[in-house]
Amino acid sequence: MIDLNKDQIQELFDFSIASEAIQNAFIASAQNHTQTPPIAQLAFPASQGECCVKTGFIEGTEGFVVKVSTGFYRNPDNGLPSSNGMNLVFCAQTGAPLAILRDEGWLTDIRTGLGGALATKALAKSGFGTVLVIGTGLQARHQARCLQQLTPDRSLSFKIWGRDTAKAHSTAEDLRKHGIDAVSVIDLAEACGAAEVIITCTPSRKPLITSDWIEPGTHITALGADSPGKQELSINLITSAELLICDASSQSLQLGEFQHLPPNSRPICLGHVLNQDHPGRTNDTQITIADLTGLAVQDAAVSLAILRAANLQNTSL
Amino acid sequence: MIDLNKDQIQELFDFSIASEAIQNAFIASAQNHTQTPPIAQLAFPASQGECCVKTGFIEGTEGFVVKVSTGFYRNPDNGLPSSNGMNLVFCAQTGAPLAILRDEGWLTDIRTGLGGALATKALAKSGFGTVLVIGTGLQARHQARCLQQLTPDRSLSFKIWGRDTAKAHSTAEDLRKHGIDAVSVIDLAEACGAAEVIITCTPSRKPLITSDWIEPGTHITALGADSPGKQELSINLITSAELLICDASSQSLQLGEFQHLPPNSRPICLGHVLNQDHPGRTNDTQITIADLTGLAVQDAAVSLAILRAANLQNTSL
Repeated sequence: MIDLNKDQIQELFDFSIASEAIQNAFIASAQNHTQTPPIAQLAFPASQGECCVKTGFIEGTEGFVVKVSTGFYRNPDNGLPSSNGMNLVFCAQTGAPLAILRDEGWLTDIRTGLGGALATKALAKSGFGTVLVIGTGLQARHQARCLQQLTPDRSLSFKIWGRDTAKAHSTAEDLRKHGIDAVSVIDLAEACGAAEVIITCTPSRKPLITSDWIEPGTHITALGADSPGKQELSINLITSAELLICDASSQSLQLGEFQHLPPNSRPICLGHVLNQDHPGRTNDTQITIADLTGLAVQDAAVSLAILRAANLQNTSL
Repeated sequence: MIDLNKDQIQELFDFSIASEAIQNAFIASAQNHTQTPPIAQLAFPASQGECCVKTGFIEGTEGFVVKVSTGFYRNPDNGLPSSNGMNLVFCAQTGAPLAILRDEGWLTDIRTGLGGALATKALAKSGFGTVLVIGTGLQARHQARCLQQLTPDRSLSFKIWGRDTAKAHSTAEDLRKHGIDAVSVIDLAEACGAAEVIITCTPSRKPLITSDWIEPGTHITALGADSPGKQELSINLITSAELLICDASSQSLQLGEFQHLPPNSRPICLGHVLNQDHPGRTNDTQITIADLTGLAVQDAAVSLAILRAANLQNTSL
């Protein structure tokens, strides 16, 4: 059994392979060629902690994945990171454990970054260049870096907005250190109006942006809402959009941004757009919204990519 | 993080400590002092395989457990065991991984053996001595051994019945090698009539025993039914019993032997009997039935017992 820590995982990680694997996972999910049983969640109010266990399998692949991710929000007070966890890979032929990927949550961060970037690239209007990122955490950085890396022929200009201006400033600074054109902005309404793409990645529980601020042709990728009560976009913005896309409608309508829609809403699966079974955006004036809640099969895809790289390395030694 | 294989786990295992831990887990479960989110299951029909992921936490303990167990029933054709899996323990204060227990399913077998033995000891009539075990697999052996070990002052006489007489014979032989008084029997109806305790542990999908065969005062512990469609006891036997006990009614009524009861049935939680909040059996003529489907908090209890033993060993070195 392969046992890798975070450093070893990062060394084996290949952006192009991972992004293709995740694209294929979205397509397999849209085509119901996946198994994603219920997510298990535990809560530890005394330690401000939570745990989430996701299990997933993409039919036809060599392994299934069980991902344990934890968030304990008092950890930083004791010098520990809030996030932790691991991905476990098991053989789909024998059930034997194949790999323990002790990624401390890094694979989740990167598959979320890649998922957002794939959705944004697929749905933004042609020739888009200005991107507003709302949020200043780790995922804000991943979204910007993954999107730039996924569109290498394009010079994207990122604006970063956060409730805390100092944090927005330092997020932009971090991105510039990685060669990305990024500055922080203060006026959210103005920044929304100037953006061709908006990416939201905050834990907000009330709408941050409203339809009045959004110009025709804007694409929005919403990543923050992942449990009941969370919300980043106003209802009027969602209902004014011409195209609603999600990673999996069962999750999006229950846990995601689209939980605030009428229950008979039927957003389109991202996989159908990526596979060109659905045309996606058809002109440069539509407002489009992609809501991503995160799929267990993204974890499976990225974990299998690491496992294959590790096996290849062992073979070539 | 502690990483133990099956041999190391077996070496650290202490029967009395584990049995007390599992008793406390049943009590905590009955008192709703546990968290047991939905079980995740995957199916691999091409390899006759299945995977089950159970997550559990007993409030007030130091860690929560994620258990991955697999059964791939073509493995023996290739010289591999059908069962595999591991228990993972995480800190309830920080979310950090504490232990990987690569038990290959052994901890599940033993906690199931102990759970059955605890239920049998609590519910059988006073002075019971004759025990019929229906089933010839690994769990039949665990049930007999755990029950004898849990009642050391008693000389139990075990009868073993199976559809395959040769297997019943070899199960009895195995038990005798461990100093247990056991013989195989051929006539199931006759053996039921002569037994004070009956333990069923088969994957049967139709009733094996019926009320006509059962004498007053008999206690039955039913372990086999753990998914829709499985059944070991006839409905008339269940409805004729004076006391129905289960490990967790939500599971028992959906997956266990009591799935065949009317949906408004309310079996008593074993933990209430173990804690003496419920009197359990009140005379030596009642027929009692305990249906056990297996709780994630049993996995948590037995895993924490191993973790504590490992930490103690490290401290004393």
